[in-house]
Amino acid sequence: MARVYNFSAGPAVLPEEVLRQAASEMLDYRGCGMSVMEMSHRSAAFKGIIEEAEADLRELLGVPESYRVLFLQGGATLQFAAIPMNLMRPRPDGSSGTADYIVSGSWSKKAFKEAKLYGEARCAASSEDGGFSYVPDADSLDLSPDADYVYICQNETIYGTRYPKLPDTGNVPLVSDASSMFLSEPMDVSRYGLIYGGAQKNIGPAGVTIVVVRDDLVRDDVLPFTPTIMRYKTQADAGSLSNTPPAWGIYVCGLVFKWLKERGGLAAARERNEEKARVLYDYLDQSKLFKGTARKEDRSLMNVPFVTGSDELDARFVAEAKAAGLESLKGHRSVGGMRASIYNAMPREGVEALVRFMERFEAENR
Amino acid sequence: MARVYNFSAGPAVLPEEVLRQAASEMLDYRGCGMSVMEMSHRSAAFKGIIEEAEADLRELLGVPESYRVLFLQGGATLQFAAIPMNLMRPRPDGSSGTADYIVSGSWSKKAFKEAKLYGEARCAASSEDGGFSYVPDADSLDLSPDADYVYICQNETIYGTRYPKLPDTGNVPLVSDASSMFLSEPMDVSRYGLIYGGAQKNIGPAGVTIVVVRDDLVRDDVLPFTPTIMRYKTQADAGSLSNTPPAWGIYVCGLVFKWLKERGGLAAARERNEEKARVLYDYLDQSKLFKGTARKEDRSLMNVPFVTGSDELDARFVAEAKAAGLESLKGHRSVGGMRASIYNAMPREGVEALVRFMERFEAENR
Repeated sequence: MARVYNFSAGPAVLPEEVLRQAASEMLDYRGCGMSVMEMSHRSAAFKGIIEEAEADLRELLGVPESYRVLFLQGGATLQFAAIPMNLMRPRPDGSSGTADYIVSGSWSKKAFKEAKLYGEARCAASSEDGGFSYVPDADSLDLSPDADYVYICQNETIYGTRYPKLPDTGNVPLVSDASSMFLSEPMDVSRYGLIYGGAQKNIGPAGVTIVVVRDDLVRDDVLPFTPTIMRYKTQADAGSLSNTPPAWGIYVCGLVFKWLKERGGLAAARERNEEKARVLYDYLDQSKLFKGTARKEDRSLMNVPFVTGSDELDARFVAEAKAAGLESLKGHRSVGGMRASIYNAMPREGVEALVRFMERFEAENR
Repeated sequence: MARVYNFSAGPAVLPEEVLRQAASEMLDYRGCGMSVMEMSHRSAAFKGIIEEAEADLRELLGVPESYRVLFLQGGATLQFAAIPMNLMRPRPDGSSGTADYIVSGSWSKKAFKEAKLYGEARCAASSEDGGFSYVPDADSLDLSPDADYVYICQNETIYGTRYPKLPDTGNVPLVSDASSMFLSEPMDVSRYGLIYGGAQKNIGPAGVTIVVVRDDLVRDDVLPFTPTIMRYKTQADAGSLSNTPPAWGIYVCGLVFKWLKERGGLAAARERNEEKARVLYDYLDQSKLFKGTARKEDRSLMNVPFVTGSDELDARFVAEAKAAGLESLKGHRSVGGMRASIYNAMPREGVEALVRFMERFEAENR
């Protein structure tokens, strides 16, 4: 069978060039007679892989010297715990640390719930009353100046929203789950205390989590029961090699970073992504059948949820699209409808094929 | 370059047949038009992969119905914390849970140290006074009948020892880190409360950790600060899909399980492994230059450390062996010397080539 257009929200489409290279190097990575899956993580070959991956990521994202880049395991879900464990500071009077969470969808809601295990997590704003169809206004947040950090999920994979503007958190570090928008556009890293993301959307395969964290947040005085391997200090001191890393995943991420660099870096990626999103949103905005569900100002460039208004028609659309080689368009099981994830590796032709299919479906079902 | 004989302790050699299949399916997994790295973990294709991997593992290892099989992330190091977090039970009087650790090398020592973060971990026996060259006698252990569990590292990767006999822990669950011997020989799972291992030695690529745990140890009443994703209950209830799993790694593990099944399962694997180990140990036992460092009765079938007695000669041996296509023979950085890891995927020809090389080196350096 030919390759499909894969609109999965994650794990998600990877550049075909990257897959071809990974396949071609499978039995012998550049003359060393081994697969990347087989080599010691202490070998010169793997050291080259992880150091080059970090250097390329730093160049792509413009990571300042004062930030550490960590390649970890466990997904965003493990970070939901690692972040408060590492960043919440019990107060001199014995009371627990505090953090402000902005709840703009399922993922930030889960992170907020998890943080309560570790201290006083407060909800600074929520868009749950609006079915998470929008992002809370960055200018009218109830933020505490003494919080240990402010937490956002910057692009909501399920509801298809993205922060149009970052909240001003003053001296309080801003922590961002950027999983589903990581490397899709430039970010000003210096505005954050910590940015993290699961790799399985825009960066590489599942099983790698990247954390970019400012030096002053990499500390020894974490909550006492924090597992050694979850302490940012442990992995920062060891160059992410305190234990055996997810070597294959880091290698594939490195290939994706090269692929992005060859295509002009993140400014060029943003242009391509804006263009792809425009093709889909423009169609949605004039359609009589399909309707985008996120508020226009807050629309994600990466995840585009939409509905027909009929569950039966939605299900038929997903099934017929799949038969036509347009894969994984079903919305998240918690919300239903459809969702097209159009990450970096989705070519414009894929989005155009989707829109043509939608036009035909609309003509047949009006 | 041709493939080398790779004696790395982990990540380690994989069956060439498995690598070829992974390469051939890279762009299109069995007609679905996607790589395994790209497919949703909720898709039918991936559900097939993980369910078949679990079924094959259960068959190979003879896992009873009353045990759960979990595919996790984070490596053995994260389990060093997860095990006490899940298994230590604070006592009704408010005192912490307790566990007995048998310290037979670096990995059990690390696990012991980590457990102290979570309760009263006691050292029931240690072979550190003998440079970890042997396994403490299973019949003269100082075990407490009220411990929450007894912990062992059943095969010590660095020092090359293996338990010749399991300790009798009565009603106290036995927890075994089997990372470097997993699936190298049959195990009687019913003798354990929990067996776990990092995949990157005998099972697959780094980034997958397999936990086989008895139902009664999968409980809600874990230590309160246990991250949700580290609770065995979370992943047991979700079939290891509570968050995005390390999908590619699980797929490769599944290919390795098929490879083992096609070759007669674990009884046949043990025969092959005993034969390979015999070839190497027989040579070591008569060599005038090389000397095995582990006590004979406790020798590992998987990891064979040896020395010449001269650091300079050891270094030369490792370098010349590498030049001859015998890769990663350097001992662990904490102990020096040499180590040949001869896991399932190391063919007998590789061990024979190593012995021929050692004979030649010995002839040239006596």
